[in-house]
Amino acid sequence: MSDVYAKLKELGIELPTAAKPGGVYSPVKAFGTTFLYCSGCDGNLEGEDLVLGKLGQDLTVEQGQVYSRNCMLKLLANLQRHLGDLNRIKRFVKILAFVQSTDDFHAQPQVINGASTLLREVFGDEIGLAARSAIGTNALPGNVPVEIELLVEFE
Amino acid sequence: MSDVYAKLKELGIELPTAAKPGGVYSPVKAFGTTFLYCSGCDGNLEGEDLVLGKLGQDLTVEQGQVYSRNCMLKLLANLQRHLGDLNRIKRFVKILAFVQSTDDFHAQPQVINGASTLLREVFGDEIGLAARSAIGTNALPGNVPVEIELLVEFE
Amino acid sequence: MSDVYAKLKELGIELPTAAKPGGVYSPVKAFGTTFLYCSGCDGNLEGEDLVLGKLGQDLTVEQGQVYSRNCMLKLLANLQRHLGDLNRIKRFVKILAFVQSTDDFHAQPQVINGASTLLREVFGDEIGLAARSAIGTNALPGNVPVEIELLVEFE
Repeated sequence: MSDVYAKLKELGIELPTAAKPGGVYSPVKAFGTTFLYCSGCDGNLEGEDLVLGKLGQDLTVEQGQVYSRNCMLKLLANLQRHLGDLNRIKRFVKILAFVQSTDDFHAQPQVINGASTLLREVFGDEIGLAARSAIGTNALPGNVPVEIELLVEFE
Repeated sequence: MSDVYAKLKELGIELPTAAKPGGVYSPVKAFGTTFLYCSGCDGNLEGEDLVLGKLGQDLTVEQGQVYSRNCMLKLLANLQRHLGDLNRIKRFVKILAFVQSTDDFHAQPQVINGASTLLREVFGDEIGLAARSAIGTNALPGNVPVEIELLVEFE
Repeated sequence: MSDVYAKLKELGIELPTAAKPGGVYSPVKAFGTTFLYCSGCDGNLEGEDLVLGKLGQDLTVEQGQVYSRNCMLKLLANLQRHLGDLNRIKRFVKILAFVQSTDDFHAQPQVINGASTLLREVFGDEIGLAARSAIGTNALPGNVPVEIELLVEFE
């Protein structure tokens, strides 16, 4: 058992099952020899109640944080399937996160801290602290509250 | 005649003329030795009626699909001008697509499938299936319905 | 004194002080051996009045241009701190800019020209003219009018 998996176990985190690729895109696309992009991913987990709606109206910031953490768990599951071993991740380079928001909701960073804090806890500051933009939007696919995409460097 | 052009001919697709670069940005910017970014591109074609407005109000999903396919045709025209030969494209890495949407329109992925399906048809799954995010927004430049940017690896 | 600093002096531009990193992300994250991403950055400068609100309602296009130029000055300050020498920048690859907009405001590119023109003036066309997307959104963090992120190649 390697470090990332020990850390996940220590934190009591179980990765969800990666969804089967479907649709006209790749959940993970490698490029160059050491980079990959993860497609925008929501935070709804199989077997749990579907969470939908806008921040500022349907979800509290705290609910949004749980949801964005679940986005990241699903992204990690996709990375696990693609890389075989999460210890191959050299750094999380960039998070681009979209938060479905009412016009007067402006706490997108706090919502996305749920996802970013997970990375920091599991991978530490050097690997886990990515560059980031957390942006509001009026409408996301399927009415999901948050969608996150990732640029990752691996070895 | 190489594969991409044979495929375009077989599908009856003619690329539009690439717009002359203008404004304070580059339509295509190469970096490293094998990567390039295409600037966000709308889907209005020269000589055709201007299409404007929001999904969920002014365009049907089907009209949006045609429009997003036209965005991709314009992006291919820009790539053609920059690379000289579309067969140099090694993979489409990442699509970031913005769909001008009413607050309750949530079918952004279906709209962007118009663009993604074109890439799959012309380049096949391995090259053409990019990682992707399809995001709604309340307002795009010039009131266009869709804007798409691209990360590409070439050789 | 090297070229970039001479040019900044000639233009009468003083870089603001880079904000101390805080929050659960990196202001600048290097990857590969020559690339870096700058996190989304607003344009509010220390010691100046806070500028908040939406284009199309609270700010004119001209005010938005000044603000987006300030976003870029803050990004340059972050790059200065990370790289030590702005002459190490080989090219600005990609600008992704979000403009907090009313539903009927569609001049996002004009607003972001404030930022892009600064790069062109200081770094010239070849280094300074990046690929770009300028996107509207209904809600940005802290109610700021503009947020810009950057992909940069350096040596």
